Amino acid sequence: MIAQVPPMGWNSWDCYGAAVTEETVRANADYMAKHLKPYGWEYVVVDIQWYQPTAVSHAYEPFSQLTMDGYGRLLPAENRFPSAAGGKGFQPLADYVHGLGLKFGIHIMRGLPRMAAHNHLPTLNSDYLCSQAADPNSICAWNPDMYGLRCDLPAARAYYDSIFRLYAQWGVDFVKCDDIAREYPRCEKEIEVISQACRNCGRVIVLSLSPGPAPLERAEHLKRYANMWRITDDFWDEWRLLKAMFERAEAWCVHAGPGHWPDADMLPLGALRQCYGKKDWTHFTPAEQRTMMTLWCIMRSPLMMGGDLPQNDAFTLSLLTNAPLLAIEKESWCARPVVSTADESVWIAPRKDGAGCYAAVFNLSEEERTVAVPSEALEGIGGKAVELWTGRETVLPLSARLSPHDAAVWLVER
Amino acid sequence: MIAQVPPMGWNSWDCYGAAVTEETVRANADYMAKHLKPYGWEYVVVDIQWYQPTAVSHAYEPFSQLTMDGYGRLLPAENRFPSAAGGKGFQPLADYVHGLGLKFGIHIMRGLPRMAAHNHLPTLNSDYLCSQAADPNSICAWNPDMYGLRCDLPAARAYYDSIFRLYAQWGVDFVKCDDIAREYPRCEKEIEVISQACRNCGRVIVLSLSPGPAPLERAEHLKRYANMWRITDDFWDEWRLLKAMFERAEAWCVHAGPGHWPDADMLPLGALRQCYGKKDWTHFTPAEQRTMMTLWCIMRSPLMMGGDLPQNDAFTLSLLTNAPLLAIEKESWCARPVVSTADESVWIAPRKDGAGCYAAVFNLSEEERTVAVPSEALEGIGGKAVELWTGRETVLPLSARLSPHDAAVWLVER
Amino acid sequence: MIAQVPPMGWNSWDCYGAAVTEETVRANADYMAKHLKPYGWEYVVVDIQWYQPTAVSHAYEPFSQLTMDGYGRLLPAENRFPSAAGGKGFQPLADYVHGLGLKFGIHIMRGLPRMAAHNHLPTLNSDYLCSQAADPNSICAWNPDMYGLRCDLPAARAYYDSIFRLYAQWGVDFVKCDDIAREYPRCEKEIEVISQACRNCGRVIVLSLSPGPAPLERAEHLKRYANMWRITDDFWDEWRLLKAMFERAEAWCVHAGPGHWPDADMLPLGALRQCYGKKDWTHFTPAEQRTMMTLWCIMRSPLMMGGDLPQNDAFTLSLLTNAPLLAIEKESWCARPVVSTADESVWIAPRKDGAGCYAAVFNLSEEERTVAVPSEALEGIGGKAVELWTGRETVLPLSARLSPHDAAVWLVER
Amino acid sequence: MIAQVPPMGWNSWDCYGAAVTEETVRANADYMAKHLKPYGWEYVVVDIQWYQPTAVSHAYEPFSQLTMDGYGRLLPAENRFPSAAGGKGFQPLADYVHGLGLKFGIHIMRGLPRMAAHNHLPTLNSDYLCSQAADPNSICAWNPDMYGLRCDLPAARAYYDSIFRLYAQWGVDFVKCDDIAREYPRCEKEIEVISQACRNCGRVIVLSLSPGPAPLERAEHLKRYANMWRITDDFWDEWRLLKAMFERAEAWCVHAGPGHWPDADMLPLGALRQCYGKKDWTHFTPAEQRTMMTLWCIMRSPLMMGGDLPQNDAFTLSLLTNAPLLAIEKESWCARPVVSTADESVWIAPRKDGAGCYAAVFNLSEEERTVAVPSEALEGIGGKAVELWTGRETVLPLSARLSPHDAAVWLVER
Repeated sequence: MIAQVPPMGWNSWDCYGAAVTEETVRANADYMAKHLKPYGWEYVVVDIQWYQPTAVSHAYEPFSQLTMDGYGRLLPAENRFPSAAGGKGFQPLADYVHGLGLKFGIHIMRGLPRMAAHNHLPTLNSDYLCSQAADPNSICAWNPDMYGLRCDLPAARAYYDSIFRLYAQWGVDFVKCDDIAREYPRCEKEIEVISQACRNCGRVIVLSLSPGPAPLERAEHLKRYANMWRITDDFWDEWRLLKAMFERAEAWCVHAGPGHWPDADMLPLGALRQCYGKKDWTHFTPAEQRTMMTLWCIMRSPLMMGGDLPQNDAFTLSLLTNAPLLAIEKESWCARPVVSTADESVWIAPRKDGAGCYAAVFNLSEEERTVAVPSEALEGIGGKAVELWTGRETVLPLSARLSPHDAAVWLVER
Repeated sequence: MIAQVPPMGWNSWDCYGAAVTEETVRANADYMAKHLKPYGWEYVVVDIQWYQPTAVSHAYEPFSQLTMDGYGRLLPAENRFPSAAGGKGFQPLADYVHGLGLKFGIHIMRGLPRMAAHNHLPTLNSDYLCSQAADPNSICAWNPDMYGLRCDLPAARAYYDSIFRLYAQWGVDFVKCDDIAREYPRCEKEIEVISQACRNCGRVIVLSLSPGPAPLERAEHLKRYANMWRITDDFWDEWRLLKAMFERAEAWCVHAGPGHWPDADMLPLGALRQCYGKKDWTHFTPAEQRTMMTLWCIMRSPLMMGGDLPQNDAFTLSLLTNAPLLAIEKESWCARPVVSTADESVWIAPRKDGAGCYAAVFNLSEEERTVAVPSEALEGIGGKAVELWTGRETVLPLSARLSPHDAAVWLVER
Repeated sequence: MIAQVPPMGWNSWDCYGAAVTEETVRANADYMAKHLKPYGWEYVVVDIQWYQPTAVSHAYEPFSQLTMDGYGRLLPAENRFPSAAGGKGFQPLADYVHGLGLKFGIHIMRGLPRMAAHNHLPTLNSDYLCSQAADPNSICAWNPDMYGLRCDLPAARAYYDSIFRLYAQWGVDFVKCDDIAREYPRCEKEIEVISQACRNCGRVIVLSLSPGPAPLERAEHLKRYANMWRITDDFWDEWRLLKAMFERAEAWCVHAGPGHWPDADMLPLGALRQCYGKKDWTHFTPAEQRTMMTLWCIMRSPLMMGGDLPQNDAFTLSLLTNAPLLAIEKESWCARPVVSTADESVWIAPRKDGAGCYAAVFNLSEEERTVAVPSEALEGIGGKAVELWTGRETVLPLSARLSPHDAAVWLVER
Repeated sequence: MIAQVPPMGWNSWDCYGAAVTEETVRANADYMAKHLKPYGWEYVVVDIQWYQPTAVSHAYEPFSQLTMDGYGRLLPAENRFPSAAGGKGFQPLADYVHGLGLKFGIHIMRGLPRMAAHNHLPTLNSDYLCSQAADPNSICAWNPDMYGLRCDLPAARAYYDSIFRLYAQWGVDFVKCDDIAREYPRCEKEIEVISQACRNCGRVIVLSLSPGPAPLERAEHLKRYANMWRITDDFWDEWRLLKAMFERAEAWCVHAGPGHWPDADMLPLGALRQCYGKKDWTHFTPAEQRTMMTLWCIMRSPLMMGGDLPQNDAFTLSLLTNAPLLAIEKESWCARPVVSTADESVWIAPRKDGAGCYAAVFNLSEEERTVAVPSEALEGIGGKAVELWTGRETVLPLSARLSPHDAAVWLVER
């Protein structure tokens, strides 16, 4: 079973944008191995445009020269990923990450490089050309690199098989495929073909789809063909985006389960937006960071840290190493909201082992506020309870005095 | 706590339409007391137009003379409810039902009788006239009796208070308020005023809103102001309606909880459409009846039997007395679908006591089909399991060979 | 041929609302006969609620007692129309108007009085009751008096025939039927039945439909069943409404022709809003009044003066007696806009007699502006031209320096 | 004044698709000069993909090698247009057409060739590269050749100026720009930049925009920036398309005037679909052909013959040489429909010289039918009338017995 519980890891986008380098990936992997691995963090994911030699920011450069092999398969830009020299691709970097006891992931755009089509490159192990697989009318609305594929044709399957076999050969454990999750209905078939190429590539690879919002009404299709998928557009460290996530979490929570996880996106914590020599830090308050971590855990979203790990301060590290909190991801099931207003949110989640449940309260308002768990909502559960951010024990009824945007969450024993 | 678990009872609409009489209500109450009470059935509900002397079918007669008092409050038509003679209203009938150890309910339309407004009748215990409370532009799309109220005015509160106090005095335990649940946003305020009149009337009365579909996006408003509300338009004994209920159940299940229950409507079982001397029987097959009962129980819908109880045959009675099945309504929580396709549906629901969970499978296709519970979906639960329609024990993995439209449901122990 | 050219007259709504009286109607008729008749003005129209004894403003009173006969036919309230006493209805007032050489019109709401249905009144010369013709679910959104009719039933035809025969007997020449022109598709059949009753009543009666906006896509239906119909919601003396009329005029102009005229609504000029002792005057500037008159004439809208005629000042009277301008209504055809921007509008209209065309320019901006007629748009026409507001002669190219919201219009000879 | 009356000519698409050759263009020009020029036909237009060496049908080949110069400007494929050899482009062919007393036109797609962007070609007489002008996200939905331009940038103006100067140098008189007329709002700015390049190129060039339907609500923008624009998607020889044109013609007729003509598309008459050795003939019946010619003329659509001229039979030629009919295009103005039902259509159009009007009747039904011009619609015009297909004289009232899909049209004298 792939992704029996929600994947946890680090992703390079929030801190390094399109300009991530091998050096920073290794540094983050080292940090994860040393500080986070015991808490369940395991995936190290290189995000977009690792194949673009001149990328220096979060922006994309049209008509740039992408690094690729003779079969139109993108390769790491060697000036940014030196270990890829000599055609070795990501294999050396994946080996390094594996050597730390971690797993390695990459980002891809659906489709094949536009120039591979215009230049009529062959597809590996097939009689098709890239120009036969490419659809000149299927392009991404925000990135200029690729043409989507004509997934009704064997040429498209041949191309996707050729890249996933390369990723398997490199040792990739996680693929985040972009420009696809919100592109229903036109990319429905492309999701299927990519999913099949992923499952047939000879290696266990988690398949993650971006960007959101994926359409709620296609939940069953997503559950069948992907392991996780984004439920909103890009999430950043702004309260309005965090507040808006509650509505999406409520709509999607029922679809979270082993092998298929609605994804609330990376955690923009700590050191963000570091490319081009910039130095920025999350704009979230400590209260907002607790709220985010609590919501992501109780809805069982995948957890992908977005900040540059080596720059973590003590508070940021404490968020990522709160073991009782992180346990919610693995020990709960069937979570749901029980109260949802403009000012507050209350969630409950039974424990899988029958030993009670979790209950979380959120203050979404701009004032200090007492938020309570309606006692009847626990339906008889509730001897002792411990709050997981403070460690304080209490008894029913559960309520917390919360500063604006803050949260509390209890493990409630039977 | 009102409606801590989903209400169960009988309603006169499916069998007697607008033409129900005291005699048939008493006969159904007698049957319930004798055969169903031990299984949790308790509400006896008189549906629409008990105040219309000439109603003889499921249709409505425009401009008819409605029975009312001098304050514009509707009264039972005495030719149909003889015990109401002498201005006693439903009190004698409620007393009778209470004497059987059961509870008594009635149907109302939002608003006040059109003629009470045109005749400028006074409102009890207030200085307002019915013509001041009534909105001449607020009418029901399918019934000609009433004007909706101008709920921004005290005159409207005064009228609704006057009728709920009357119902409390009669001994009413359950009010099904119609022409309102799908009338958002224009009836939002009217729901609030009715809810407040209900809660302030001096008696515990369950408030049920019809007809559906209530809007999913107003779930929190419904949860706050009503105890149950319809999630579809009228449900009858047609497979296409039953199949369509699965999509609504999936969308609404997360909102089912103590005090607030999404309502899949009456159970059209047994003797239906009995007015005007007609004799009809449910068109559902036995398989479809099992599917309906299983879905209603695992989604925790209220259960309101729609057929004429005294005419029940053995099979119909067996559906209403399957104690382990009906226990799901009271013992489970946090139910959710885990698979949902055009051909099959799978649901799971943890038990509140931690002793495992329920799992249900449905064959929605037109062919015999094996439907399985994905083992990973149980997340580790699953020693022994017993199927609740057959009583057969089994072990994981769970699957059933089902005829078209049939269902199976297991209690899975830890 | 009814309404071979656009009807011209006076209507009571803008000055007296629902509270018009016989005295004011006679005074306006006297004025029209004396000052306006030579310029083509002829209809004197009593607007809404002449049957409501207590109306005192532009507002409607719900559940009021309407004056009607034993067949549910509304009659003038005798306290407001004394000559109607003794069941004579509007006949004496119509006689008076006819005696001045003018024509008489009334306003009606579609449908029959709600109380006529609730009281089951008979319909004249038929076996039907008003309660059989009335549809309890067809009400007006803004007026509480009537129920619309079930126009698929003979009972509805019988009722409409009964009222139009009464109007013919009174001597009515013009009926403005309200709550209908924008009520497509649900009132499509009701328009047909009313139109047939009007044409079969034994007297030539112009049929005008209100309120707008009538749907452009139903132009052919309107052309077939009505003589004029409103193209916007109520028009008042506000620049934003006048500016917005240009877009509607452009869309509808192609449908103006003998017997069927898109109607830009009454002219809110002079003394407006006079009921309840109020004294108000048009808020339009002189420039805006020229613009309105010019647009209404070149688009060939009906002209219905809305102000209280006896209070006209010299400027207002001059607008209503500009003979060369008013001639456009009768002498032009096939008008169309040739330029239409946020800042200016230019229209042309050929003369029917071949002797050239009309050209109008409008300054819709907030600054003084020169607006020109593109010379090529005249396609070769244009020796001499005379401007119709100033009487000044000129030659091509045509242009005018206009203050904000002002207009110019030329008769261009071949 | 460009296009003071609607342009008339021949276009290669309907007969030769993307595969038109110099030989066929010359043959059609010769025929036009010999047989059609006296009747007003003058433009000879080479339609899409004259720059694609391998085009053989009406289809497009993705990722093909387009003929272009070093500045990304497309050139005629020399294998198809031999006179273009040596970089002479269309100049020799334009010279030839001019030598016949006719005018020369070409088709272009908005944007620049994709490969010109990927190869970073320079733009003539500027410091910009094609890759700076091209928008990698702006592509055509149905043709794979081009990228649209970033028209907020000077680089885009530079490119469009460079191609229109080339066309002026070649001697082009007419440019049909494609993938643009229905692309509002995203191509609004591109239309403006193309229009300005066209007007500033140093030669009078008619600018025609395709494909339709152009949005009616943007009529003023189209009138300002283009000389003609398509009002429907591609029109072919099918009755349902011809019938549907009536609704579009009615909506657009008011916008037809000197310099700006709503375009009902090419006339699919005679020899159509001739590429790849195929031989096809118009599927329109003679009646339908009369209907099309009559509608196009009275609405004043441009007339572009789509069939291969040298193959014309006598009937086809007669359609193109009916002088009194074709005169409607030049002698009428302010045309409009007066009747429009599912079964019939009636149009009128005043003559510019004041000498009466035209009136046309169409039988849109499937049965023989008499269609009449309502006499009042002529508003007093009408001594003598002559029908223009038969030459028969008549007097009012006008009506014709028409076979299904047939038309009649009269010149009505005063």
